[in-house]
Amino acid sequence: MAQKTVPDSTRRSERSRRAIYDAALALVHETGYAKLTIEAIAARAGVGKQTIYRWWPSKGAVLLDAFLDLADQASAEASEKAGHDVVQTEITDSGDLEADLKHVMRATVDEFNDPKYDAPYRALAAEGLLNPEVGAEFVEKLLEPQLQLFVRRIRKAQEAGHVLPDVDPRIALELWASPLAQRWLMRSGPLTHEYVDKIVEYALYGITRSRP
Amino acid sequence: MAQKTVPDSTRRSERSRRAIYDAALALVHETGYAKLTIEAIAARAGVGKQTIYRWWPSKGAVLLDAFLDLADQASAEASEKAGHDVVQTEITDSGDLEADLKHVMRATVDEFNDPKYDAPYRALAAEGLLNPEVGAEFVEKLLEPQLQLFVRRIRKAQEAGHVLPDVDPRIALELWASPLAQRWLMRSGPLTHEYVDKIVEYALYGITRSRP
Repeated sequence: MAQKTVPDSTRRSERSRRAIYDAALALVHETGYAKLTIEAIAARAGVGKQTIYRWWPSKGAVLLDAFLDLADQASAEASEKAGHDVVQTEITDSGDLEADLKHVMRATVDEFNDPKYDAPYRALAAEGLLNPEVGAEFVEKLLEPQLQLFVRRIRKAQEAGHVLPDVDPRIALELWASPLAQRWLMRSGPLTHEYVDKIVEYALYGITRSRP
Repeated sequence: MAQKTVPDSTRRSERSRRAIYDAALALVHETGYAKLTIEAIAARAGVGKQTIYRWWPSKGAVLLDAFLDLADQASAEASEKAGHDVVQTEITDSGDLEADLKHVMRATVDEFNDPKYDAPYRALAAEGLLNPEVGAEFVEKLLEPQLQLFVRRIRKAQEAGHVLPDVDPRIALELWASPLAQRWLMRSGPLTHEYVDKIVEYALYGITRSRP
């Protein structure tokens, strides 16, 4: 791509935006989401309150964009390490659906247990429950793209004849994705590799002796 | 049981408590959880703010007890209608696990789609994500007792030889309970009888052609 000349005002905006993201993520970690305010984010980022209100309607909207940016950065770092673009990582298709699902679910457990993601992701999920607009954006921009990776992997397994042809992939993936999300969000049980291994096995092969 | 003489002060307390529950449930419905305050609950209930703070540490704690009371009332009404105690309803064991699970899951869908439960339950779930103490109480008093009903039904199915003996019932139930909870909380998909029927079928029989 040709090198573009970036005007000063765009560079200043970009600097402000990054400062606002950093401030929002740091504050939600330090003080918790309930005490997070636009005022505090502005003060920490060294920008005026009006700058934030010009770009975002609520603290939930700021935090959602900050979190999406954090996820983008993690992908960019992974791409640099790998030497190629891994932003749109598909779930590996090794031909062994059980092994591939266990691999990605174990990695997700490790990510959920990482404190860097814990506070903002939990705050966004909570805000999404109470504020339908943030909730819809959370689902559309964050949750659903992750779930669609499973949809595509299940479709490949159906094409290979490993998954029953009448199974609806968008529903089937919830058998393993939702238990992990609920345990993590509600802290209703331990999140371990052994746990997700069992969930994947039960989902693929069922918990009964046989089909009826 | 012998008729007890209830002292006036206990009756007054009971009246205040009920007024506080009613006020909290009405307000969370009308103004939303974010704008709910102890002050507003006290004003609506016609009690002093200090009365509420004497009994509960936070608005989340008030709402949790109000919701548990609402659930108790619903059970009491059901008992009266049925002419016997149904407070501790077990999941029916007709010998057909698929039919019994579909029955209870369809009833849960209907309950989640009832606006009376929607606002307070969603608010409690959100508060539980941000406030670990409310979250732990939510899980212990509300979520886990409901999940244990599935544990006991799965154990019976194991004794009858319908469910594989090495399946962990506390994990297996999440295959159908968590997808329903996540769809409802995140509004990430429609909640219908057809949906829960599929989830139950996939969980019982698996989504692949056969065991490995």
